[in-house]
Amino acid sequence: MAGMGVGLVGTGYMGKCHALAWNSVASVFGDVERPRLVGLAEVDTDLARRKAAELGFATSTGNWRDLLDNPEIDVISVTTPNQFHADMAIAALEAGKHVWCEKPMATSLADAERMLAAQRASGKVAVMGYNYIQNPLVRHMADLIGEGAIGDITHVRVEMDEDYMADPAEPFYWKSEAQSGYGALDDFAVHPLSLLSVLVGLPVEVMTAMAKPYADRPARDGGRRAVENHDIANVLMTFEGGLSGVLMANRSAWGRKGRIFVQIYGSNGSILYDQERMNEFQLYDRSGNPANHGFRSVLTSGHHPIYGKFIPAPGHGLGFNDLKIVECRELLSAIAGRPAHVVDFEIGLKIERAVHAMARSHAERRWIQTI
Amino acid sequence: MAGMGVGLVGTGYMGKCHALAWNSVASVFGDVERPRLVGLAEVDTDLARRKAAELGFATSTGNWRDLLDNPEIDVISVTTPNQFHADMAIAALEAGKHVWCEKPMATSLADAERMLAAQRASGKVAVMGYNYIQNPLVRHMADLIGEGAIGDITHVRVEMDEDYMADPAEPFYWKSEAQSGYGALDDFAVHPLSLLSVLVGLPVEVMTAMAKPYADRPARDGGRRAVENHDIANVLMTFEGGLSGVLMANRSAWGRKGRIFVQIYGSNGSILYDQERMNEFQLYDRSGNPANHGFRSVLTSGHHPIYGKFIPAPGHGLGFNDLKIVECRELLSAIAGRPAHVVDFEIGLKIERAVHAMARSHAERRWIQTI
Amino acid sequence: MAGMGVGLVGTGYMGKCHALAWNSVASVFGDVERPRLVGLAEVDTDLARRKAAELGFATSTGNWRDLLDNPEIDVISVTTPNQFHADMAIAALEAGKHVWCEKPMATSLADAERMLAAQRASGKVAVMGYNYIQNPLVRHMADLIGEGAIGDITHVRVEMDEDYMADPAEPFYWKSEAQSGYGALDDFAVHPLSLLSVLVGLPVEVMTAMAKPYADRPARDGGRRAVENHDIANVLMTFEGGLSGVLMANRSAWGRKGRIFVQIYGSNGSILYDQERMNEFQLYDRSGNPANHGFRSVLTSGHHPIYGKFIPAPGHGLGFNDLKIVECRELLSAIAGRPAHVVDFEIGLKIERAVHAMARSHAERRWIQTI
Amino acid sequence: MAGMGVGLVGTGYMGKCHALAWNSVASVFGDVERPRLVGLAEVDTDLARRKAAELGFATSTGNWRDLLDNPEIDVISVTTPNQFHADMAIAALEAGKHVWCEKPMATSLADAERMLAAQRASGKVAVMGYNYIQNPLVRHMADLIGEGAIGDITHVRVEMDEDYMADPAEPFYWKSEAQSGYGALDDFAVHPLSLLSVLVGLPVEVMTAMAKPYADRPARDGGRRAVENHDIANVLMTFEGGLSGVLMANRSAWGRKGRIFVQIYGSNGSILYDQERMNEFQLYDRSGNPANHGFRSVLTSGHHPIYGKFIPAPGHGLGFNDLKIVECRELLSAIAGRPAHVVDFEIGLKIERAVHAMARSHAERRWIQTI
Repeated sequence: MAGMGVGLVGTGYMGKCHALAWNSVASVFGDVERPRLVGLAEVDTDLARRKAAELGFATSTGNWRDLLDNPEIDVISVTTPNQFHADMAIAALEAGKHVWCEKPMATSLADAERMLAAQRASGKVAVMGYNYIQNPLVRHMADLIGEGAIGDITHVRVEMDEDYMADPAEPFYWKSEAQSGYGALDDFAVHPLSLLSVLVGLPVEVMTAMAKPYADRPARDGGRRAVENHDIANVLMTFEGGLSGVLMANRSAWGRKGRIFVQIYGSNGSILYDQERMNEFQLYDRSGNPANHGFRSVLTSGHHPIYGKFIPAPGHGLGFNDLKIVECRELLSAIAGRPAHVVDFEIGLKIERAVHAMARSHAERRWIQTI
Repeated sequence: MAGMGVGLVGTGYMGKCHALAWNSVASVFGDVERPRLVGLAEVDTDLARRKAAELGFATSTGNWRDLLDNPEIDVISVTTPNQFHADMAIAALEAGKHVWCEKPMATSLADAERMLAAQRASGKVAVMGYNYIQNPLVRHMADLIGEGAIGDITHVRVEMDEDYMADPAEPFYWKSEAQSGYGALDDFAVHPLSLLSVLVGLPVEVMTAMAKPYADRPARDGGRRAVENHDIANVLMTFEGGLSGVLMANRSAWGRKGRIFVQIYGSNGSILYDQERMNEFQLYDRSGNPANHGFRSVLTSGHHPIYGKFIPAPGHGLGFNDLKIVECRELLSAIAGRPAHVVDFEIGLKIERAVHAMARSHAERRWIQTI
Repeated sequence: MAGMGVGLVGTGYMGKCHALAWNSVASVFGDVERPRLVGLAEVDTDLARRKAAELGFATSTGNWRDLLDNPEIDVISVTTPNQFHADMAIAALEAGKHVWCEKPMATSLADAERMLAAQRASGKVAVMGYNYIQNPLVRHMADLIGEGAIGDITHVRVEMDEDYMADPAEPFYWKSEAQSGYGALDDFAVHPLSLLSVLVGLPVEVMTAMAKPYADRPARDGGRRAVENHDIANVLMTFEGGLSGVLMANRSAWGRKGRIFVQIYGSNGSILYDQERMNEFQLYDRSGNPANHGFRSVLTSGHHPIYGKFIPAPGHGLGFNDLKIVECRELLSAIAGRPAHVVDFEIGLKIERAVHAMARSHAERRWIQTI
Repeated sequence: MAGMGVGLVGTGYMGKCHALAWNSVASVFGDVERPRLVGLAEVDTDLARRKAAELGFATSTGNWRDLLDNPEIDVISVTTPNQFHADMAIAALEAGKHVWCEKPMATSLADAERMLAAQRASGKVAVMGYNYIQNPLVRHMADLIGEGAIGDITHVRVEMDEDYMADPAEPFYWKSEAQSGYGALDDFAVHPLSLLSVLVGLPVEVMTAMAKPYADRPARDGGRRAVENHDIANVLMTFEGGLSGVLMANRSAWGRKGRIFVQIYGSNGSILYDQERMNEFQLYDRSGNPANHGFRSVLTSGHHPIYGKFIPAPGHGLGFNDLKIVECRELLSAIAGRPAHVVDFEIGLKIERAVHAMARSHAERRWIQTI
């Protein structure tokens, strides 16, 4: 059987990341047919041609709709700017292609809802690019929680912090425009929410405070321009059954580069995880002699799911791009009708709903239900 | 000149801690007269006598009011259970004694207000036992912030977590009674607030969600008894000028023993501090070559205030009890009319107000002003 | 211009790792022609066929010499067990192919010398698979040292520890046979030596003590069998100019998974690095206010060499396999006659000499010169 | 019964530290009579008077021999410069006083031997000031090892590093003179050796390499002066039964302040400890599910020996000076004829012997037996 025929729209950061995954997935896992990299679409035709050569695609086009018509293509990676996700994903599904779409789903809730509807109507597989959930350690943590290793969950905290907006001297650009989104909330919060979705579920009620560390920024044409959205978002959360949690996001946090710090407390132990050290997690287990109790730093190894497909030796470390290869594999499993560990459009929509509820809570200064 | 005459009420954890401080303060600092440990009061007369011998006090009594009448006594340490703080502190001040009172100030806001009034009327010094602010590193962090080393403060997070209530099999005891207080909020939150008071100030508006990890606990007489207060408290905060922050407290957090984790982000850098590693703090400074930027772990040394009085060599480590010796020194400075780094009853009352506002916010599910 | 034609011998851990690198190098770097994966050799013909499909090679063979005759092949990856390296690498070079050979070079010093001679005679490029030196942070550390950022180097320590031989109940297998090598010394020490070679150079005199944590092990056929080599090796080192250092290797160190801890002290600062946390290094810089001195944890980012080719965002993390992709790129640079950051056969041989001198020092219980 | 009568010779760093311990030991432990601080000796009479007042001693003298004649004095703390230890300790023992002597014992092996002989002849207690062994965690680690918690010990590494000699611009002073000692070896190595003595025993054979990071230093009178001893010492060690180890000491290691890093590997697990974070240790235990194996950071608590005497709450942290209080308590236990956890003159002499053997090994470039 021939491997899946792949189309790719977009050749930025995530486009390259998808391409690397399509290139490597068969070699890493050894149990899927090698995908055929059929066609790449990029607005600029010359760039499209050059990128196709670099990334190993057989053909290129300046018009993404060409991919829809190509019968060789079974699945399309959508890695374009957020405002294009909805139209492209829906068109691909309607053309009978499976879809691998980068996050967030869309720039409006209505679009995200249309995307789920299109997926349902198509019967095709549609998977979101939330690759942090593919970390073998995150999967192991989810297994531990599922098995009750730390008992009933009693409290959850998630922080996501980076510093790319931390410099107040940085001129105003589109990221600070209201139309780009709420700010830290949609830029960041979707990632912690994807992790929560596999670890403890999504919140049912939220109370949000957003903040602007810098009221204005230098305008490119001189003078200053008011910042229109919020680099900081803090959310009190209640989950089903009354579980409490806090979600914090800050894209102006000097020193933080890719921090997603998760604290999960249970009646029998605790789990900590920091995305900046993605090859270790910490487990506190209250059994045994209390004189020896402490958080243990567990390094990824073949004892955790999937890691052994990359490296037989323990503790040698996966990278961010490797998680995308795992995601690609899960997508292929879903397409093959096997159980798959993915954020599909249904869960993806729930994440979007949670984000929009958070934003509304801030605006109305009150608790809002997410569902 | 003879040293201060000292009276001590209470001989529990904090009573011993005060006694150790009174015993050591002259030896450590070398620039204050050696205090005279005059009298110790403890309800049980035998215990009082024994403790006086252990802790180095000349006399003992079963009646704390005896200390008020003793002209040899200049200052009284109040280390009894919280409900006695107000009466004892007020009586001591009215008797013309200086007061060193353990936290929290009182069990009601009204009492705390009376305490401040009594201090003002007396003209005597009254200092609260918030010893975490005495850490040389905390003082250094406050200096750094004051000098603008990390620029304008843009965001603050504080977490205080322990696990002494984490075991759901632990029988119900007074800590879970409503009359003992709100739970994590007053049990813990006063400590982070004392730190905030010296680092960035206190919040002006708060939004709180409290939670019960365990709805009930085994009753000592069999059956189960409903938990009446909250082991978890999470607070969104706004400070003067719009600064945003989050305060989290959890006394059921398995694995946390004395964690007070502070994150302070500024326009020019960041500061991190964890009370469980009280001899180091972390500083991120964005100056210089970005290829070498990172959080630095700074160990306490003689380059920080006061440390050198304890140990000339850097990095050798102070302990929790040492902070109480520093607090004692600051109290003596205040009594001598010199500048002192303390939480006096005025700031102490502000901390109490903040806590009560937080509790009210939870009850009313809305933002509450603290002042 | 067409990309390099690639042959691969061996399909174990390192064979797969090479294949992944050949598959990804063009996509990651975007400035090299996409290699053509021409032929794969593996003793078992069926396995060879299957692996060729998985790893993306066009043809397969059960006889590695077939690769030598294939004019489509420009470069051969040698990833077979150590005892085959010499013959294969030499044959490949003699056949006019470039060689990418896994470490260690050979099982005898004489073989390693023959390999270097063959490379010199051929005029072809021959590169060793010491991928740890390809870490952007290691390259940055080397740059820092070269620029004098930490002053003159005053002391060096390197530890390499794993625990795959730590279980005394593990039955005797070939790793404990004398003919497999000295034990930790050649199994591990070559890695730290490769790092030293790019950071501070190789030692000129060594004094070694090797040890057996377990004198014997369960024999597979019952009874016990004496362990013939040493799981532990400790080496005092002197470098050119009198620089002192220590190298320690232990493959029976419970809890260590892929630790290579490097400490480099200079007259002006220090550098620390731990392979188990390969996306950060620590820098101590004595400039500025000593109250703020401390080791900083620097996360990999686009400010370091090469990282940006993988991921534009800082702190997102590379993995072990990514280092092999960098190595592949450097090999291609060397083939193209551009400056390349590699351990070639000349440096590779120096590393081998150092290892053999270390072993001799242990046997003779005296200092031995490595050159 | 009245408490011990105490005499103190010397009022520097360690004199103050002893005084603090004598002041606090009864308050902390509550089960020893409060010592009477009888007399303090210091060469300068005025300084002696002032220090007696500060440190709480009843009398002072400019002549240390006065303490010998004082019948009120039962025990003498010797905290003067190293060259005076022998004469003072021997005189005190001969005068029928117990002795608490700071490390190292003496500046020559002959003196140390005389000290032990004097102690034996006197029948009095003589204890060395190796306070690191008094850390509750070190005592717990010793207990764990004794109970076989990590199995048979297979390897040991100890590093002791500071940076007070790291600055090459620092002028030559007495620490670099040959007559001050070997350098890092006696300045530092005695501390790790004291730890080894309680954890795994002392080495029986050693191989040392010492090094000078800086050949000369600025002379105070202009020009440069050759450094006469070694800031760096590295030692390969063999223990009884063939156990292997490495000891490293460096007093020119930028960034290290009070590091004593201990790694102890066993057949069943591992223990790590760093004096710079003296309130935690790390334990690796290979039992249970390997997917959850990792080093745990255990914080000091009441589950470890003695800690509860200082603080009831776990994880709140002891300091360096607290260890001296414990040492004082152990001294009092020894005097009372109870089992005591101390380095007495017998073990103290063994440590001295090991240091001198190490120095000789360096000079002769060969393995030397310590006994």
